[in-house]
Amino acid sequence: MFTRSATVLLEENAGILMNWLNSFDAVLTDCDGVLWVYGDVIDGSVEVMNRFKEMGKKIFFCTNNSAKTRKELLVKAQQMGFNVTENEIISTAHSTATYLKQRDFNKNVYVIGSEGITKELDAFNIKHNTVGPDHMTGNLADYLSTRFKLENNVGAVVVGFDEHFSFPKIAKAASYLNDPDCLFIATNTDERFPMPSMVIPGTGSLVRCIETCAERQALVIGKPNVSICAHLIDDGTIKPERTLMIGDRCNTDILLGYNCGFQTLLVGTGVHTLESVRRWQTSNDDELLKLVPDVYLPKLGDLLQYM
Amino acid sequence: MFTRSATVLLEENAGILMNWLNSFDAVLTDCDGVLWVYGDVIDGSVEVMNRFKEMGKKIFFCTNNSAKTRKELLVKAQQMGFNVTENEIISTAHSTATYLKQRDFNKNVYVIGSEGITKELDAFNIKHNTVGPDHMTGNLADYLSTRFKLENNVGAVVVGFDEHFSFPKIAKAASYLNDPDCLFIATNTDERFPMPSMVIPGTGSLVRCIETCAERQALVIGKPNVSICAHLIDDGTIKPERTLMIGDRCNTDILLGYNCGFQTLLVGTGVHTLESVRRWQTSNDDELLKLVPDVYLPKLGDLLQYM
Repeated sequence: MFTRSATVLLEENAGILMNWLNSFDAVLTDCDGVLWVYGDVIDGSVEVMNRFKEMGKKIFFCTNNSAKTRKELLVKAQQMGFNVTENEIISTAHSTATYLKQRDFNKNVYVIGSEGITKELDAFNIKHNTVGPDHMTGNLADYLSTRFKLENNVGAVVVGFDEHFSFPKIAKAASYLNDPDCLFIATNTDERFPMPSMVIPGTGSLVRCIETCAERQALVIGKPNVSICAHLIDDGTIKPERTLMIGDRCNTDILLGYNCGFQTLLVGTGVHTLESVRRWQTSNDDELLKLVPDVYLPKLGDLLQYM
Repeated sequence: MFTRSATVLLEENAGILMNWLNSFDAVLTDCDGVLWVYGDVIDGSVEVMNRFKEMGKKIFFCTNNSAKTRKELLVKAQQMGFNVTENEIISTAHSTATYLKQRDFNKNVYVIGSEGITKELDAFNIKHNTVGPDHMTGNLADYLSTRFKLENNVGAVVVGFDEHFSFPKIAKAASYLNDPDCLFIATNTDERFPMPSMVIPGTGSLVRCIETCAERQALVIGKPNVSICAHLIDDGTIKPERTLMIGDRCNTDILLGYNCGFQTLLVGTGVHTLESVRRWQTSNDDELLKLVPDVYLPKLGDLLQYM
């Protein structure tokens, strides 16, 4: 409906808003930075998403957050008031486990990440290490020669968000990945979460570390990889041209939309700003142009008045 | 003397060896993987390096290892029998401190690394954090809101080898680097140290992690950056065309040689093999061709019989 080279500011174009609302039958939305920020709902998001559903649109919550299971995300969303079911939630932890299950994976997984991932693996009876702290103790040479232990039969390394990321974990992952038959999976590659007074590392920073050390590239499960929602397209649940992707991070959410042929909406309540979009629009870099959304809104709740 | 596209196997060409030995007046050599492996001297290396010196050649030990001060490296080398002085040792920890000193740096340094770096900073009275373990404790949200502390007046982040690398360290480095005036220095970018049964992460893996999280590129002090030995060229101590660079890792040692216009010798006692070199030689990639050494020897000690 809109051309990618000229992002429409919906608030300045209320007249075309009804047409736009009728131009999609399905909505995929990111969660952190669009619907909520950590434990706090973003004003108006619940009402807009629930209204989409009342209007008969299919909705899907699609998150790169690997720290929670689908069930945990469901509980969180429902407690905030979102009218959503487990099948409407797409999460990288669950998708990673599904990916391994579909390959009849029957070895052990070495997980750098949290229980969000291991619980999803448990649900498919896929064996894995225990996640949590694993720090170097004592002298490095002693540690490596006596306390550094590799498990047998590890057939996959999965890297997700891990606040206990450490040197031994890097060494173990890279050692397992020396076997070219060992799968290398990253839940996502979000680089960082900028906060007002600090930067919180994202999974993408940890993935680049392991990729460098292993001299291999990970298969990325999450956005912007099409595979995260390919099943919805393949089985006809959604039609790409009549699907809207909503996000706050252009190199995951908006790029997924581009990769799938969805319409795209950027909201300004998270990582990327309209200022960044304007800069990319005037670049001659095809990769940057892919990050430009069709439509921009300061926040998702701004739609409510027109619905 | 040799063309880069055809690495000479010196052992198969003993006839030209004397000419080659006379073709350089100065020798820069890497340490780990050429002279020693951790605490063990590599057979014949002491004798060859000492013989170079007796022949009147200038020698320099040039290491990317940031875990030791120049003084500590000196003691290690002398205990092994190398006839070397402190001024003949070039180390990234010392060069990093020198770099900051030369800029009259008077803020605090946030060091991800070891005491090899902080002791060299101390020698120039440059202030820094305490290195060592700094792990996430308890719940992430609690940790970030109550126990995560940034120091004031940090004007540089230095990343070196750190076996206590952790999530909080990544977060702190990226937070400091949000200030565009904060310097970002990497001692080196050696990606990994492959061992028979495991992979030990190198500083380069940690640097890529911080670079990704900070969305900035580090200034690399160590090999293959010319600045590590530029002072020797600038003050006329060595003449590039009559200098030999010896190493075991092509993307640091041999590439430094290429970058400086040195002759180069790869030895097979460390990271890279003749097999890799042969693969690069037949590639059409200019970047890979830069990694091809002039000369190859299974080990440095093999030279002894001809000296």
